[in-house]
Amino acid sequence: MASASFYAEEVAVLGVGLIGGSFVKAMKEMGAAGRIIGYDTDATVRESVLATGEIDIFASTITSAVATADVIVLATPVRTTLALLADIAPTLKHGAKVLDLGSTKREIVVAMNRLPSYVEAVAGHPMAGKAESGWAVADGRLFQNSTFVLCPTQRTPTVAASWAEALVQTIGATPLILDADIHDASVARVSHLPYILSATLAKTAAPDTHARHLSAGGYRDTSRVAGHNPHMMRDILLTNTDNLLTLIQVAQAHLGSLEQLLSTHDEAGLMQWMQEARDQR
Amino acid sequence: MASASFYAEEVAVLGVGLIGGSFVKAMKEMGAAGRIIGYDTDATVRESVLATGEIDIFASTITSAVATADVIVLATPVRTTLALLADIAPTLKHGAKVLDLGSTKREIVVAMNRLPSYVEAVAGHPMAGKAESGWAVADGRLFQNSTFVLCPTQRTPTVAASWAEALVQTIGATPLILDADIHDASVARVSHLPYILSATLAKTAAPDTHARHLSAGGYRDTSRVAGHNPHMMRDILLTNTDNLLTLIQVAQAHLGSLEQLLSTHDEAGLMQWMQEARDQR
Repeated sequence: MASASFYAEEVAVLGVGLIGGSFVKAMKEMGAAGRIIGYDTDATVRESVLATGEIDIFASTITSAVATADVIVLATPVRTTLALLADIAPTLKHGAKVLDLGSTKREIVVAMNRLPSYVEAVAGHPMAGKAESGWAVADGRLFQNSTFVLCPTQRTPTVAASWAEALVQTIGATPLILDADIHDASVARVSHLPYILSATLAKTAAPDTHARHLSAGGYRDTSRVAGHNPHMMRDILLTNTDNLLTLIQVAQAHLGSLEQLLSTHDEAGLMQWMQEARDQR
Repeated sequence: MASASFYAEEVAVLGVGLIGGSFVKAMKEMGAAGRIIGYDTDATVRESVLATGEIDIFASTITSAVATADVIVLATPVRTTLALLADIAPTLKHGAKVLDLGSTKREIVVAMNRLPSYVEAVAGHPMAGKAESGWAVADGRLFQNSTFVLCPTQRTPTVAASWAEALVQTIGATPLILDADIHDASVARVSHLPYILSATLAKTAAPDTHARHLSAGGYRDTSRVAGHNPHMMRDILLTNTDNLLTLIQVAQAHLGSLEQLLSTHDEAGLMQWMQEARDQR
């Protein structure tokens, strides 16, 4: 993997939770930014970040945050990012580079395609995270050795060998250029459906006192991602509904088959149902 | 926790996979058995166990395995145990003590109630396991500090302070005396439904090439128990169908609600659906 080094004089980061905060720290640690301007609507977040000295300036308005920035990184929930892209469009300077870090990509690409033709924009998704969220657990090494999806937009002449690829490599991640359609269909399967079934388990099987005594790794692991932040998940699910509705229907069909096999004590069918699950994993 | 020490001159272990093998090793390590007689229908298993010297004798018939045993431990899949209990009934000597290690307990208790009145029987379920199965990964410390459920039968005058409790404590586990009905309802929630939803995920979302690149901890953890041994799971599911059919219907109802919320873009309802999942976990 060729490494590339990225540098920008002024970088604006909109949203400084786990992902945005980790991105800021990674850029600082790699000397990839001359100056970082933060923006976050949460006053408590702003105060605590300023206290650490890791972000030089917090802008009081979104306009002042991005007006002079060479690179704008959007690290908010997906639908906030969609709104922000429209908000910042008139303010971006010529040649400004825009990257987002959201978990679904098709609607982001559509919104980026509407940006002025004199800016460049790439839709990104770092495949990295933590159980906890927020600036307090942000970590400059979060993206080290992780895959970082980059989706082309009409505002990117080419993604390969672009500034976006260089930036991603600079923070230690491996870029994976992927069409937004393919990205969203894939994460629906390996990320959003696991969340949905994990949450379904938590809602259905909330352990009572007895069950808690008998609860072992199976329940713990299978229900783990049900603990994801609902605000973040809402935006993810609502910007990937078509893929998810299809998958939910397939999941329901599999559950319906199992119900039928169990109620008729169909041993051979049950073995096949379970064997396929084991094989396909 | 009062510890108790257990000793029996002759112990027969029927089935020497992970659980039965670990039980044998634990009893040997604690000096709890004078002589251990193994029984397993798999010739390859018998040969490899005899080669280790950890079991003194393998019986060639089930009758010869149990005829002189003071304690009989059944460590086979649940429905095999049900059949074996009927098979061994006429052969058991007066005062023989019977314990099983299966994952569902109601049908086992019913079968134990049919044993001759001159034997004692307790239905057990050690809450311990491993990802792998078989004698090769059996471990005498598997039950250390784990919960070991003991369900009373009509063949147990009292479980508390009984030989079964002493035996469980001798191998390092903590006995939990529980009615078989409560046990089966609880494990349906915290063990069998997690398996069913994990398997449903694996069947629905088998990652293609792209998805594999994007697959992270969420898919891995949520689909982990889908890899359980289908033969073992078949017996578990088929001896807990009433509890599972009820839970599957509740899970389907939750998925149906989510489908409705997503297709109507009901943000408030979606937030509530997800918040409840997070709270109940």
